[in-house]
Amino acid sequence: MSINRQPIGIFDSGLGGLTVFKEIRRLLKYENLIYFGDTARVPYGNKSKETIVKYSKEITKFLLKHNVKLIVAACNTVSSLALDELKKEFSIPIFGVIEPGARRAYKKSIKSIEKIDNYKNNNYNSDVEVNTIAVIGTKATIGSKAYSNAISRLNNYDKGANITIIERACPLLVPLVEEGWIDSNITSEILKYYLQPIIETKPSSIVLGCTHYPMLKTIISKIIDKNTEIIDSGKEVSIEVRNFLINNNMLNTTLDKPFEKYYVSDDPEKFKLLGSNFLGKNITEDIEVIIDFL
Amino acid sequence: MSINRQPIGIFDSGLGGLTVFKEIRRLLKYENLIYFGDTARVPYGNKSKETIVKYSKEITKFLLKHNVKLIVAACNTVSSLALDELKKEFSIPIFGVIEPGARRAYKKSIKSIEKIDNYKNNNYNSDVEVNTIAVIGTKATIGSKAYSNAISRLNNYDKGANITIIERACPLLVPLVEEGWIDSNITSEILKYYLQPIIETKPSSIVLGCTHYPMLKTIISKIIDKNTEIIDSGKEVSIEVRNFLINNNMLNTTLDKPFEKYYVSDDPEKFKLLGSNFLGKNITEDIEVIIDFL
Repeated sequence: MSINRQPIGIFDSGLGGLTVFKEIRRLLKYENLIYFGDTARVPYGNKSKETIVKYSKEITKFLLKHNVKLIVAACNTVSSLALDELKKEFSIPIFGVIEPGARRAYKKSIKSIEKIDNYKNNNYNSDVEVNTIAVIGTKATIGSKAYSNAISRLNNYDKGANITIIERACPLLVPLVEEGWIDSNITSEILKYYLQPIIETKPSSIVLGCTHYPMLKTIISKIIDKNTEIIDSGKEVSIEVRNFLINNNMLNTTLDKPFEKYYVSDDPEKFKLLGSNFLGKNITEDIEVIIDFL
Repeated sequence: MSINRQPIGIFDSGLGGLTVFKEIRRLLKYENLIYFGDTARVPYGNKSKETIVKYSKEITKFLLKHNVKLIVAACNTVSSLALDELKKEFSIPIFGVIEPGARRAYKKSIKSIEKIDNYKNNNYNSDVEVNTIAVIGTKATIGSKAYSNAISRLNNYDKGANITIIERACPLLVPLVEEGWIDSNITSEILKYYLQPIIETKPSSIVLGCTHYPMLKTIISKIIDKNTEIIDSGKEVSIEVRNFLINNNMLNTTLDKPFEKYYVSDDPEKFKLLGSNFLGKNITEDIEVIIDFL
């Protein structure tokens, strides 16, 4: 049994990664956690790959200085555009959110396909097209085709099932969530506009390909078919991180109260206020502002 | 008659300042113009004062290297939070958009008050409360109270009229404009939500306190009372810049075709594409990406 007290480092362009932080805390109650939110340079979703790689490397170096044992890039944009570069440059285990979300969606699709095959009934009717997977995210994430590439890779390695992927950029959702309009009629209207072409394809699942989107899960579940599974990539990466720590004997097996540290690149008060919504609990810790690499 | 070929430098956090660029070009057909859009670090509207001052100083130094004769901070957030600091550090004339917008709104209000006084009729009815001025902008601009302070200063210097200022932050408008939703029903609904408390005060004018908002002028004019003047701060600063150049013998009085140069800190192609909408003409020039101070 190991006692690895080194913290897990989690970073995001801003607040969204706190939904991943929350899931990691839920699964790993005794791990020390460090969060970095690049609030001065948020959003990443409409920046170029070069810029996102540069920023992500700076943040990784910052987390390494804090002696983390593992890093989670809790940002779909970073995971889409910079993860390979980060893994090339740094030897520490780094997890992105794309692969875990893609794996879950792929499994769901395959499971549904098998289930229907088992019926061996050509007249089987379903409200859901088991071989369609939907993905929503920022422009950068969707433009990178990171999810469809990841799902296609899984499918090629595996059974080569007939899977269609429909991806849609929903650039207004992040500002709506950041404004706290998470149960407004206008948000519902905008979501209906974005989701309409997706609903028509009756997907087996819809991947929330942006860490802000779990905040809209309730409203999305009212719009989307109840048979379509809503997949939270942040939740999926948390499961993979837990499994990795267990398999590699890297868990903190003490039962000490773990620390949670938050760092931002701008305005800690705003982070505290809005971040508490994302985290579902009040951030009572002091938040340090890091301006070294601005 | 002078021949001052030095360019005018115009900068913004991103694309919005192009609405100011457009107005300056309309009034000053022979001036050479340089534009800098800090597209890697956009938006400024939710960053702290310290960060905005730092970024603005970096951009000012960049423009000075390009031998500009005058600088326009074509960004309400910069004008609200960093203009004083810039003027303290640099000796070149620097114009912000707040004072010109505030002056126009103040004059309109005073003119209306005088007009009504002239009626000398207590029963005079108007759809417009001549002594209310409305201002809309980003959170940072509205939070800084830059417009109400500027209007109050004018009023104190002057007649001390009974003027009420109503200010409202409309943080979703920038993303809506950047998405090109400038005539959508949803934008109209969001604007109605934001403008409702303003409409109720029947203001003499409404100041568009963000350089993105002139793109919504048509839709706003359909929602707001027709007697309420819609004031475009970018248009107002252009008039002041022209007057300043004339009065200080700094005009470029050659009739040579002037140059227009564009610099950004990220993704020139996106800037070209979206910027052309803001400018109302295609940007055909090459756009240089400056990453020195990122």
